[in-house]
Amino acid sequence: MTYDVAIVGTGPAAVSAALTLKVHNKSIIWFGSRKMSPKVEKSEKIANYPGVAMVSGPELNQLYRRQVEEAGLEITEKLVTNILGSRSGYMLQGGDEIYSARTILLTTGAVSGKGFPGEERLLGSGVSYCATCDGFLYKGKTIAVFCGSRDFEHEAEYLAELAEKVYLFTAYPDCGVERENVIVNPGRIKEINGTMRVSGVTLTDGTELEAAGVFVLRNAVAPGTLLKGLEINGADIVVDRRMATNKPGCFAAGDCTGRPYQLAKAVGEGNVAAHSIIEYLAEMDKQ
Amino acid sequence: MTYDVAIVGTGPAAVSAALTLKVHNKSIIWFGSRKMSPKVEKSEKIANYPGVAMVSGPELNQLYRRQVEEAGLEITEKLVTNILGSRSGYMLQGGDEIYSARTILLTTGAVSGKGFPGEERLLGSGVSYCATCDGFLYKGKTIAVFCGSRDFEHEAEYLAELAEKVYLFTAYPDCGVERENVIVNPGRIKEINGTMRVSGVTLTDGTELEAAGVFVLRNAVAPGTLLKGLEINGADIVVDRRMATNKPGCFAAGDCTGRPYQLAKAVGEGNVAAHSIIEYLAEMDKQ
Repeated sequence: MTYDVAIVGTGPAAVSAALTLKVHNKSIIWFGSRKMSPKVEKSEKIANYPGVAMVSGPELNQLYRRQVEEAGLEITEKLVTNILGSRSGYMLQGGDEIYSARTILLTTGAVSGKGFPGEERLLGSGVSYCATCDGFLYKGKTIAVFCGSRDFEHEAEYLAELAEKVYLFTAYPDCGVERENVIVNPGRIKEINGTMRVSGVTLTDGTELEAAGVFVLRNAVAPGTLLKGLEINGADIVVDRRMATNKPGCFAAGDCTGRPYQLAKAVGEGNVAAHSIIEYLAEMDKQ
Repeated sequence: MTYDVAIVGTGPAAVSAALTLKVHNKSIIWFGSRKMSPKVEKSEKIANYPGVAMVSGPELNQLYRRQVEEAGLEITEKLVTNILGSRSGYMLQGGDEIYSARTILLTTGAVSGKGFPGEERLLGSGVSYCATCDGFLYKGKTIAVFCGSRDFEHEAEYLAELAEKVYLFTAYPDCGVERENVIVNPGRIKEINGTMRVSGVTLTDGTELEAAGVFVLRNAVAPGTLLKGLEINGADIVVDRRMATNKPGCFAAGDCTGRPYQLAKAVGEGNVAAHSIIEYLAEMDKQ
């Protein structure tokens, strides 16, 4: 089926948009984590969100989970790694499946601009964001895996079952993966190497490691990589007051559109984006 | 004293901004009603505000009042009727007092564009927004009073004590003012008449009533009337993504900036405006 809207991300902007779109009876495919935003989860106390005084991040995520459930909203726990846009709508790769939606809302949070040097250029030529999609290609080979959060360790384990040797780089201390063929944190990735295809990685200390493929496992893919041609300024998706991007039918909200990185701002933008999407769909229906 | 910021209005956008500005230790003069937003108060159920599921308007206002009190924020219950801007800041008329602030945040809600025909043109020439300021001018005379909500009935009573005769027009049924010299709702005002000064009002049925002055008592003054030269589009204050208006140091948030007229949108814009004000003040301090 083709959904009215695909939402990418499950932070406050997404919750706000999803609740509003649901009230307006739009069909929604919503990608992200059922645990909701890891950034909210890490917040100690939020002092400036109207209506919920001095709430902690985990409490707020709990409120969100209940509210989302009561509204009958469902979250599809897949990482969206690629989006194709056309006049009539969008195709999204979520894990190893393809989804179709008339509009998309990006709420991907504040991610560092372009990832590693070489990452975007070599995406699809040895760089992959999806272990289950592309892992089989590296059976018996040496690969590098960047693990952006503990949530991806099971994907790293899966890759280690296939590959001969894995250089595993974690963005956090105390890696939980222990295997004979996995070398944990031999340094920090500076760059992904390769001309036509990935040849390996260079570390910040200058060491070069050979690898046939590099898996970059992050909570969010940089939006400019996710959707080709999306206008980005620095690391921020460029939007107008309606939260419309330069791509027709593609809207964005929350930290991914820039500062202030604030709960209330994200919630407000999610709401505005939802209303713009409702208007956009109504316009499409007229044509 | 000169405040860092003057906030006009006590709806959700204002609450959001005030909480944020307070966290950042800005000095605030905040004008509006301690009962908070009458529009929120009238909301039956709000289904799409993240963090507070299916809240009623009165419940939400109660949450706001508690949160505002706990944050140590104070509300000055005066209607701001006129604002003068200069390079170094703003002077605000609140009731019959003048306040000074380096920046202003307008959160005046969705008000009908320009008020009554003739209202803006004759403001200060027989049209007044402030009973306590200008009432004495009409001692023993005939006046017309438009009462936008029950909250202003005490001002209408005060005017009736001074004036010989009062035509009282209410925006609601069941007027509570009963006096011999007050004629309640002889029709609906179509236009305020007068060339150099107010001469009276024309009603929608064509009747013309003579009056030496017209008091227009509303919860909010149309923003374009409040601050001369403020850029307005239709009835909306024109803002950029930072919630800045065309007047340096003047920001706006909430319904007064246009659709969607939504709680989450107002809260988000209040937050963004507060951060822009903090930046603006920091820039001023550098100069």
